[in-house]
Amino acid sequence: MTNAPDPLIQHVSFDQAGLVPVIAQQHDTGEILMVAWMNRDALAETLATGQMCYWSRSRRALWRKGETSGQLQRLIELRLDCDGDTLLAKVDQIGVACHTGRRSCFFRTATSGGWQVTTASEVDPTTLYPEKP
Amino acid sequence: MTNAPDPLIQHVSFDQAGLVPVIAQQHDTGEILMVAWMNRDALAETLATGQMCYWSRSRRALWRKGETSGQLQRLIELRLDCDGDTLLAKVDQIGVACHTGRRSCFFRTATSGGWQVTTASEVDPTTLYPEKP
Repeated sequence: MTNAPDPLIQHVSFDQAGLVPVIAQQHDTGEILMVAWMNRDALAETLATGQMCYWSRSRRALWRKGETSGQLQRLIELRLDCDGDTLLAKVDQIGVACHTGRRSCFFRTATSGGWQVTTASEVDPTTLYPEKP
Repeated sequence: MTNAPDPLIQHVSFDQAGLVPVIAQQHDTGEILMVAWMNRDALAETLATGQMCYWSRSRRALWRKGETSGQLQRLIELRLDCDGDTLLAKVDQIGVACHTGRRSCFFRTATSGGWQVTTASEVDPTTLYPEKP
Protein backbone atom coordinates (compact mmCIF):
# COMPACT_ATOMS: atom_id res chain seq x y z
CA MET A 1 0.00 0.00 0.00
CA THR A 2 1.35 3.38 -0.98
CA ASN A 3 0.61 6.83 0.32
CA ALA A 4 0.15 8.25 -3.16
CA PRO A 5 -2.52 10.95 -3.16
CA ASP A 6 -5.82 9.91 -4.67
CA PRO A 7 -5.94 11.25 -8.24
CA LEU A 8 -9.49 12.57 -7.73
CA ILE A 9 -9.71 13.61 -4.07
CA GLN A 10 -6.48 15.62 -4.10
CA HIS A 11 -7.99 18.13 -6.56
CA VAL A 12 -11.13 18.79 -4.53
CA SER A 13 -11.06 21.98 -2.45
CA PHE A 14 -12.70 21.20 0.87
CA ASP A 15 -13.83 24.18 2.96
CA GLN A 16 -12.55 25.15 6.40
CA ALA A 17 -14.80 22.50 7.94
CA GLY A 18 -13.35 19.88 5.60
CA LEU A 19 -16.53 19.67 3.53
CA VAL A 20 -17.58 20.11 -0.08
CA PRO A 21 -21.18 20.61 -1.29
CA VAL A 22 -22.54 17.95 -3.61
CA ILE A 23 -25.50 18.31 -5.96
CA ALA A 24 -27.32 15.05 -6.66
CA GLN A 25 -29.00 15.13 -10.07
CA GLN A 26 -31.06 12.30 -11.54
CA HIS A 27 -28.87 11.27 -14.46
CA ASP A 28 -31.55 10.72 -17.10
CA THR A 29 -34.18 13.37 -16.32
CA GLY A 30 -31.89 16.17 -15.11
CA GLU A 31 -34.03 16.70 -12.00
CA ILE A 32 -32.13 18.12 -9.02
CA LEU A 33 -32.81 15.75 -6.16
CA MET A 34 -30.89 17.24 -3.21
CA VAL A 35 -27.76 19.01 -2.05
CA ALA A 36 -25.66 17.55 0.76
CA TRP A 37 -22.04 17.60 1.92
CA MET A 38 -19.09 15.23 1.76
CA ASN A 39 -15.82 15.09 3.66
CA ARG A 40 -12.81 13.19 2.35
CA ASP A 41 -13.96 9.91 3.83
CA ALA A 42 -17.46 10.21 2.36
CA LEU A 43 -16.02 10.99 -1.06
CA ALA A 44 -13.57 8.10 -0.85
CA GLU A 45 -16.33 5.69 0.14
CA THR A 46 -18.61 6.93 -2.64
CA LEU A 47 -15.87 6.42 -5.21
CA ALA A 48 -15.04 2.98 -3.83
CA THR A 49 -18.60 1.64 -3.60
CA GLY A 50 -20.49 3.56 -6.29
CA GLN A 51 -23.20 4.31 -3.73
CA MET A 52 -23.62 7.90 -2.53
CA CYS A 53 -22.21 8.48 0.96
CA TYR A 54 -22.46 11.96 2.49
CA TRP A 55 -21.36 13.60 5.73
CA SER A 56 -24.26 14.44 8.00
CA ARG A 57 -23.49 17.81 9.58
CA SER A 58 -26.23 17.35 12.18
CA ARG A 59 -25.26 13.82 13.22
CA ARG A 60 -21.53 14.37 12.58
CA ALA A 61 -21.26 10.96 10.96
CA LEU A 62 -21.02 9.33 7.56
CA TRP A 63 -24.46 9.17 5.99
CA ARG A 64 -24.86 6.25 3.62
CA LYS A 65 -27.81 7.51 1.65
CA GLY A 66 -30.66 5.04 1.80
CA GLU A 67 -29.08 2.85 4.48
CA THR A 68 -32.11 3.26 6.74
CA SER A 69 -34.81 4.17 4.23
CA GLY A 70 -33.80 1.92 1.34
CA GLN A 71 -33.87 4.95 -0.96
CA LEU A 72 -30.38 4.34 -2.36
CA GLN A 73 -28.53 6.57 -4.79
CA ARG A 74 -26.18 4.89 -7.24
CA LEU A 75 -23.41 7.07 -8.65
CA ILE A 76 -23.45 7.27 -12.45
CA GLU A 77 -21.02 10.14 -13.10
CA LEU A 78 -19.14 12.62 -10.91
CA ARG A 79 -18.17 16.10 -12.02
CA LEU A 80 -16.08 18.86 -10.46
CA ASP A 81 -16.55 22.56 -11.09
CA CYS A 82 -13.98 25.09 -12.28
CA ASP A 83 -13.02 26.18 -8.76
CA GLY A 84 -12.83 22.61 -7.52
CA ASP A 85 -15.09 23.40 -4.59
CA THR A 86 -18.42 21.89 -5.69
CA LEU A 87 -19.27 18.39 -6.92
CA LEU A 88 -22.09 17.38 -9.24
CA ALA A 89 -23.13 13.75 -8.88
CA LYS A 90 -25.31 12.28 -11.59
CA VAL A 91 -27.12 9.47 -9.81
CA ASP A 92 -29.83 6.90 -10.18
CA GLN A 93 -32.22 7.44 -7.28
CA ILE A 94 -34.31 4.55 -6.00
CA GLY A 95 -37.63 5.88 -4.77
CA VAL A 96 -37.48 9.35 -3.22
CA ALA A 97 -34.52 11.51 -2.24
CA CYS A 98 -36.25 13.75 0.31
CA HIS A 99 -36.99 12.77 3.89
CA THR A 100 -40.48 14.26 3.39
CA GLY A 101 -41.29 11.47 0.93
CA ARG A 102 -40.84 13.62 -2.16
CA ARG A 103 -38.65 12.77 -5.11
CA SER A 104 -36.75 16.09 -4.75
CA CYS A 105 -35.95 18.27 -1.76
CA PHE A 106 -36.69 21.36 -3.89
CA PHE A 107 -40.47 21.20 -3.59
CA ARG A 108 -41.12 24.84 -2.62
CA THR A 109 -41.46 27.45 -5.38
CA ALA A 110 -41.22 31.21 -4.96
CA THR A 111 -44.43 33.18 -5.56
CA SER A 112 -45.33 36.79 -4.82
CA GLY A 113 -47.07 35.59 -1.66
CA GLY A 114 -44.27 33.40 -0.35
CA TRP A 115 -42.98 29.85 -0.82
CA GLN A 116 -45.60 27.52 -2.21
CA VAL A 117 -45.37 23.73 -1.97
CA THR A 118 -45.61 22.58 -5.58
CA THR A 119 -44.87 18.86 -5.24
CA ALA A 120 -46.83 16.35 -3.20
CA SER A 121 -45.25 13.51 -1.22
CA GLU A 122 -45.08 10.21 -3.08
CA VAL A 123 -44.34 8.15 0.01
CA ASP A 124 -45.54 8.45 3.61
CA PRO A 125 -42.35 9.64 5.34
CA THR A 126 -43.15 7.62 8.46
CA THR A 127 -42.69 4.47 6.39
CA LEU A 128 -39.19 5.57 5.35
CA TYR A 129 -37.77 5.70 8.87
CA PRO A 130 -39.61 3.04 10.85
CA GLU A 131 -37.26 3.24 13.82
CA LYS A 132 -38.08 6.88 14.51
CA PRO A 133 -41.07 7.63 16.77
CA MET B 1 -42.81 51.74 3.64
CA THR B 2 -43.28 49.03 6.22
CA ASN B 3 -40.80 46.82 8.00
CA ALA B 4 -42.78 43.67 7.27
CA PRO B 5 -40.44 40.72 6.70
CA ASP B 6 -40.12 39.66 3.10
CA PRO B 7 -42.38 36.62 2.58
CA LEU B 8 -39.62 34.77 0.73
CA ILE B 9 -36.33 35.87 2.31
CA GLN B 10 -37.51 35.32 5.89
CA HIS B 11 -37.79 31.55 5.29
CA VAL B 12 -34.27 31.13 3.89
CA SER B 13 -31.69 29.80 6.36
CA PHE B 14 -28.47 31.69 5.76
CA ASP B 15 -25.31 30.16 7.18
CA GLN B 16 -23.05 31.69 9.83
CA ALA B 17 -21.44 33.86 7.16
CA GLY B 18 -24.88 35.08 6.08
CA LEU B 19 -24.78 33.13 2.83
CA VAL B 20 -26.86 30.47 1.07
CA PRO B 21 -25.66 28.31 -1.83
CA VAL B 22 -27.53 28.66 -5.10
CA ILE B 23 -27.60 26.17 -7.96
CA ALA B 24 -28.17 27.75 -11.36
CA GLN B 25 -29.86 25.30 -13.73
CA GLN B 26 -30.75 26.04 -17.34
CA HIS B 27 -34.55 25.96 -17.16
CA ASP B 28 -35.29 24.10 -20.39
CA THR B 29 -32.41 21.62 -20.73
CA GLY B 30 -31.84 20.82 -17.05
CA GLU B 31 -28.09 21.43 -17.38
CA ILE B 32 -26.39 22.55 -14.16
CA LEU B 33 -24.54 25.73 -15.05
CA MET B 34 -22.86 26.77 -11.80
CA VAL B 35 -23.12 27.03 -8.03
CA ALA B 36 -22.59 30.36 -6.29
CA TRP B 37 -23.66 32.10 -3.09
CA MET B 38 -26.16 34.80 -2.14
CA ASN B 39 -26.52 36.96 0.92
CA ARG B 40 -29.79 38.69 1.79
CA ASP B 41 -29.06 41.69 -0.41
CA ALA B 42 -28.17 39.54 -3.41
CA LEU B 43 -31.35 37.52 -3.02
CA ALA B 44 -33.45 40.66 -2.61
CA GLU B 45 -31.93 42.20 -5.73
CA THR B 46 -32.42 38.99 -7.73
CA LEU B 47 -36.08 38.86 -6.73
CA ALA B 48 -36.57 42.56 -7.52
CA THR B 49 -34.85 42.60 -10.90
CA GLY B 50 -35.29 39.04 -12.20
CA GLN B 51 -31.58 38.98 -13.05
CA MET B 52 -29.30 36.72 -11.03
CA CYS B 53 -27.19 38.60 -8.50
CA TYR B 54 -24.77 36.66 -6.28
CA TRP B 55 -22.36 37.51 -3.49
CA SER B 56 -18.74 37.18 -4.52
CA ARG B 57 -16.88 35.66 -1.58
CA SER B 58 -13.50 36.56 -3.10
CA ARG B 59 -14.35 40.18 -3.93
CA ARG B 60 -16.72 40.58 -0.97
CA ALA B 61 -19.20 42.44 -3.14
CA LEU B 62 -22.48 41.92 -4.95
CA TRP B 63 -21.84 40.10 -8.20
CA ARG B 64 -24.37 40.96 -10.86
CA LYS B 65 -23.89 37.95 -13.11
CA GLY B 66 -22.96 39.07 -16.62
CA GLU B 67 -22.46 42.72 -15.71
CA THR B 68 -18.91 42.66 -17.08
CA SER B 69 -19.07 39.73 -19.50
CA GLY B 70 -22.57 40.25 -20.88
CA GLN B 71 -23.36 36.61 -20.04
CA LEU B 72 -26.55 37.43 -18.13
CA GLN B 73 -28.75 34.96 -16.28
CA ARG B 74 -32.47 35.68 -16.19
CA LEU B 75 -34.39 34.10 -13.32
CA ILE B 76 -37.23 31.87 -14.50
CA GLU B 77 -38.17 30.07 -11.28
CA LEU B 78 -36.73 29.92 -7.77
CA ARG B 79 -37.03 26.92 -5.48
CA LEU B 80 -36.09 26.28 -1.85
CA ASP B 81 -35.15 22.90 -0.40
CA CYS B 82 -36.69 21.11 2.58
CA ASP B 83 -34.16 22.48 5.05
CA GLY B 84 -34.44 25.99 3.67
CA ASP B 85 -30.67 26.25 3.30
CA THR B 86 -30.17 25.78 -0.45
CA LEU B 87 -31.75 27.58 -3.41
CA LEU B 88 -32.31 26.20 -6.90
CA ALA B 89 -32.62 28.88 -9.56
CA LYS B 90 -33.97 27.85 -12.93
CA VAL B 91 -32.50 30.44 -15.27
CA ASP B 92 -32.11 31.37 -18.89
CA GLN B 93 -28.37 31.77 -19.48
CA ILE B 94 -27.14 34.05 -22.24
CA GLY B 95 -23.93 32.63 -23.69
CA VAL B 96 -21.73 30.83 -21.18
CA ALA B 97 -21.92 30.61 -17.39
CA CYS B 98 -18.29 29.71 -16.69
CA HIS B 99 -15.42 32.19 -16.63
CA THR B 100 -13.42 29.65 -18.68
CA GLY B 101 -15.75 30.21 -21.62
CA ARG B 102 -17.73 27.03 -21.11
CA ARG B 103 -21.47 26.77 -20.84
CA SER B 104 -21.21 24.99 -17.46
CA CYS B 105 -18.63 25.17 -14.67
CA PHE B 106 -18.88 21.38 -14.25
CA PHE B 107 -16.64 20.47 -17.17
CA ARG B 108 -14.37 17.96 -15.38
CA THR B 109 -15.47 14.33 -15.12
CA ALA B 110 -14.09 11.70 -12.77
CA THR B 111 -12.18 8.84 -14.36
CA SER B 112 -9.98 6.14 -12.87
CA GLY B 113 -6.95 8.25 -13.82
CA GLY B 114 -8.17 11.55 -12.43
CA TRP B 115 -10.37 14.47 -13.51
CA GLN B 116 -10.72 14.70 -17.26
CA VAL B 117 -11.89 17.84 -19.05
CA THR B 118 -14.89 16.69 -21.03
CA THR B 119 -16.23 20.00 -22.37
CA ALA B 120 -14.37 22.44 -24.57
CA SER B 121 -14.59 26.22 -24.27
CA GLU B 122 -17.17 27.82 -26.54
CA VAL B 123 -15.85 31.33 -26.07
CA ASP B 124 -12.31 32.67 -25.67
CA PRO B 125 -12.34 33.72 -22.00
CA THR B 126 -10.12 36.72 -22.71
CA THR B 127 -12.99 38.20 -24.72
CA LEU B 128 -15.36 37.88 -21.75
CA TYR B 129 -13.36 40.12 -19.43
CA PRO B 130 -11.68 42.67 -21.68
CA GLU B 131 -10.61 44.91 -18.82
CA LYS B 132 -8.47 42.20 -17.23
CA PRO B 133 -4.83 41.91 -18.39
